[in-house]
Amino acid sequence: MSRYAAPLADLRFALHDVLDVESTYARLPGCATATRDVVDAVLEEGAKFAEQVLAPLNQSGDAEGCSYDKATQSVRTPKGFKEAFAQYVEAGWIGLVADERFGGQGLPETLGAALKEMIDSANLSWGNYPMLSHGAGSALEHHGEDWQREVFLKPLVAGTWTGTMCLTEPHCGTDLGLLKTKAEPNPDGSYRISGTKIFITAGEHDFVDNILHLVLARLPDAPAGVKGISLFLVPKFKVGKDGTVGERNAAVCGSIEHKMGIHGSVTCVMNFDGAEGWLVGQPNKGLAAMFTMMNTARLAVGLQGLGLTERAYQNSLAYARERLQMRSLSGAKFPDKPADPLIVHPDVRRMLLTQKAFAEGGRLLGLYAYLHEDIRKHSQDAAERERAEALVSFLTPIVKGLLTEAGIECTYHALQVFGGHGFIVENGMEQFARDARITTLYEGTTQIQANDLLGRKVMQLQGVGLKHFLAEIGAFCAAHANDAALAEFAGPLGKAAKEWGELTLELGKRAGANAEEIGAAAYDYLFYSGYIALAYLWARSVAAADTSKQSQEFRDAKRLTARFYFARILPRIHTHAAAMRSGAANLLEMADAQFG
Amino acid sequence: MSRYAAPLADLRFALHDVLDVESTYARLPGCATATRDVVDAVLEEGAKFAEQVLAPLNQSGDAEGCSYDKATQSVRTPKGFKEAFAQYVEAGWIGLVADERFGGQGLPETLGAALKEMIDSANLSWGNYPMLSHGAGSALEHHGEDWQREVFLKPLVAGTWTGTMCLTEPHCGTDLGLLKTKAEPNPDGSYRISGTKIFITAGEHDFVDNILHLVLARLPDAPAGVKGISLFLVPKFKVGKDGTVGERNAAVCGSIEHKMGIHGSVTCVMNFDGAEGWLVGQPNKGLAAMFTMMNTARLAVGLQGLGLTERAYQNSLAYARERLQMRSLSGAKFPDKPADPLIVHPDVRRMLLTQKAFAEGGRLLGLYAYLHEDIRKHSQDAAERERAEALVSFLTPIVKGLLTEAGIECTYHALQVFGGHGFIVENGMEQFARDARITTLYEGTTQIQANDLLGRKVMQLQGVGLKHFLAEIGAFCAAHANDAALAEFAGPLGKAAKEWGELTLELGKRAGANAEEIGAAAYDYLFYSGYIALAYLWARSVAAADTSKQSQEFRDAKRLTARFYFARILPRIHTHAAAMRSGAANLLEMADAQFG
Repeated sequence: MSRYAAPLADLRFALHDVLDVESTYARLPGCATATRDVVDAVLEEGAKFAEQVLAPLNQSGDAEGCSYDKATQSVRTPKGFKEAFAQYVEAGWIGLVADERFGGQGLPETLGAALKEMIDSANLSWGNYPMLSHGAGSALEHHGEDWQREVFLKPLVAGTWTGTMCLTEPHCGTDLGLLKTKAEPNPDGSYRISGTKIFITAGEHDFVDNILHLVLARLPDAPAGVKGISLFLVPKFKVGKDGTVGERNAAVCGSIEHKMGIHGSVTCVMNFDGAEGWLVGQPNKGLAAMFTMMNTARLAVGLQGLGLTERAYQNSLAYARERLQMRSLSGAKFPDKPADPLIVHPDVRRMLLTQKAFAEGGRLLGLYAYLHEDIRKHSQDAAERERAEALVSFLTPIVKGLLTEAGIECTYHALQVFGGHGFIVENGMEQFARDARITTLYEGTTQIQANDLLGRKVMQLQGVGLKHFLAEIGAFCAAHANDAALAEFAGPLGKAAKEWGELTLELGKRAGANAEEIGAAAYDYLFYSGYIALAYLWARSVAAADTSKQSQEFRDAKRLTARFYFARILPRIHTHAAAMRSGAANLLEMADAQFG
Repeated sequence: MSRYAAPLADLRFALHDVLDVESTYARLPGCATATRDVVDAVLEEGAKFAEQVLAPLNQSGDAEGCSYDKATQSVRTPKGFKEAFAQYVEAGWIGLVADERFGGQGLPETLGAALKEMIDSANLSWGNYPMLSHGAGSALEHHGEDWQREVFLKPLVAGTWTGTMCLTEPHCGTDLGLLKTKAEPNPDGSYRISGTKIFITAGEHDFVDNILHLVLARLPDAPAGVKGISLFLVPKFKVGKDGTVGERNAAVCGSIEHKMGIHGSVTCVMNFDGAEGWLVGQPNKGLAAMFTMMNTARLAVGLQGLGLTERAYQNSLAYARERLQMRSLSGAKFPDKPADPLIVHPDVRRMLLTQKAFAEGGRLLGLYAYLHEDIRKHSQDAAERERAEALVSFLTPIVKGLLTEAGIECTYHALQVFGGHGFIVENGMEQFARDARITTLYEGTTQIQANDLLGRKVMQLQGVGLKHFLAEIGAFCAAHANDAALAEFAGPLGKAAKEWGELTLELGKRAGANAEEIGAAAYDYLFYSGYIALAYLWARSVAAADTSKQSQEFRDAKRLTARFYFARILPRIHTHAAAMRSGAANLLEMADAQFG
């Protein structure tokens, strides 16, 4: 059975010592209740829930999976999942960051992110159910009419119902412009929704009585493509405008998918057969409304990658300490034992340090992005809001792309540390690798994140987010220009940031001549950007640790991990830069037939 | 259902146009029968067997897996596996490269490798059964006594029995010096073997009547550590020196493992309880004997990585052509269709070309190594034999390490091309990713390959294999110095090869001062070396294609793929070089407690 202990010390370090969230919350209207004590209490209680309730259900949930009963078109989730959700609701976690107007606790998103990391470490599959509810609620909060928020949002926040996002159809995933699901108006203002949606997480389950599907569909007179998509709310059981729950709606789960991983998270084919639904927001503006929840969901999936990285790290570290195998190349380190523990071997340390660097650096990157989301939502200063919005928008594809790919890399390393034992199901490591594999696919593949970053956030929006981020790095480097203890990081960081700016201009010129250059560079640009962003946060970690009240051992660990990161991970940017500079021709010249 | 068509055109190109195996075979005693016609016939018939018999059993074998019956301690393999093995034996494939003295066909190893790639593409799990027989047979051929080869080897070659390698014990995998299995002498010259072995592929199954276990164990007076290990032959059913099969031996399967992948390949816990066995080779020299088969097995596992890369490539290429999603950034390429096929998108092409470059380049690297194995075995020229032996020994960890890691990378890319559909079991892509995950673990992890390459093959053996390889690259570059068509490859290749030599000397100096530097650089050195080795073989491919009778389209495809490889894969060496040059300190300075 694999282990998990919430990384409370590092979460507190990130939130308090590095980001100093308390100071920010103190001046943000609506966030002032999130004092240091409240933050710490949430972390500690959240840790208990994750460790004691969710973690024990992770391997059993994988082994059992979800099952579908064709006769009743119902889904049974793994043993214990439903009860865990009831406890989650009971303890008030479900509405932690939801608006108080709708029954939530109104705590900052950053705290929700810290909780979410722990949930995803403990049980990624289970975490998908509340995540989808959160996303659906967020769309309703921003785009729903008053009665819809009253009738539909409150039960979501209360956890008596859950939500879904119904976008994908068999012939269209990324390309939503192709979608065919229809919405025809009824005389009473509702709509009849008809079509098939696939890959619907939490589309049907046994946690609660009603499920709210947010469904993209086309109105009869809708223009073709993405400009003709509207958003509808389709409950499993019909709900009147007064909140009365009525009969079963024609929105049913037709089957569930057998997947590589996240077996406890049900993935449904949903059939809508003239189901009653309600328009959310403006006609034909559904995609924009959906993107409200999509962006939140993308950050959240980034946290899933982080959660798996942390869990994988903890387990491979423990194994590397326990497992005795071979002697250190420079002579026995534990001559009284039959062999040295794995952790003496340099390449095992490389695999552990890679995970540690991505876990702690990735945690800070994620929380940094969420903190700017809180600032965007709550700041009274328009310029500060604008800057925060630009930063979140710019960082979202980086958080999603980098942290999920790092999750795949780190679960790979962790399994590798276990050797052949990593391949054996009961040791739990292979589940992490399988579960991680979904995170670079859903809520937009890594390719979609890359195109969003370079094509939209950098090129279309004239790199406003990037400029803010580079200015912040520049200010950090300038502030530490005479700081001998930081020189080993500030120097290379400043150099990398300068090159980042130059390379971006270079790509802009290329893209002006040939739009394909964006698609040819986007993937490498995503990683290139992500590695420099992490370098910045690692340098900040060292600076913050040095001025903190943390123990000398903790400070040294931050410095040594940063040193490892700068020496052995950051140099990946050279390969990515070379690939980008090689241009689009080496990807595009091959004729279709020549591929084989 | 995933597809597979053996890459006959590229296999023929590699064997005939690039390596010109016919000329080599013509002058090697015992190989002359392997004319071009024979080679092509083996390829074509092998392709039929792989495509028609093995490939259809791959997904069903994964879904069904192997099952263990506790009452009879027997294993049932997936439906069709046993019958496929009978066909394989019937058609004479099992003894293809075995010595004619023992009933084999005596064809070159290189041809066996080409067949093995096709088998592994079609059904990796199934391929493990003959692979283990081949390994066991090879150990017996080189280290067995005459009567052992007569009685035990012949049935292996005939395919009436199969073989295993029993090395690992619960507390020792890599570190065989720790092994505890005992061998006590009987008065009749046999031994009583007692102990538990784990991770025994094909340890028990239903293909044939008898199974020969090659078991590492300690004699009563054996010195501690690896110098006290002997090799024993322990049949499932006892066999007299006259070949008479007797009663059931006390060598039984106690349970089987549940694994992430290769479900059709059974992995057994084997209990030896005073089982009758026979010493193979000299007492206490078992490890050396085992390495005879281990080295062959390492090259063979490299081919497994290649096989999966090829299969993954074919399927993701087909999907990229069929699946319509989004428009090309430079404008619709198929305006009459609702969207463009995925293959128009540059990053999809990057993922496809990465797979193509590793499949075709990796194929050539593998066959190049096997051809030198044939030269080592058969050449009449001592200097040529010595050179070939040094090259094979040097290239084995590269073939194993690079091609298996490339298998993981490429099955990742292929799944990614499928988007969310890649995560769904029935599409078959996730099985390739799961099956690939074992290849960097068994027969020595990537870390073991890396230490073998840098620590043993380069440092201890004074880089004799590397020198031969660099000299060959140098000669190639010199021969093409004035060849304008090759300049784009010969230039960067020559530069990289020069740096390879220099970096090796630099590491040698560091290692002289601190042995840990080897362990700290080994992993990066393995990839660094592998990428340059592939660059050489890609340059040779272009040169060979240009002077071949291949179509213009084929030649252009080789040139364009090589161009992609040099522009977007080879630059990975910069990151690896930077990591190596950063030294061991950033891995070793962290105290155990500071890891977390």
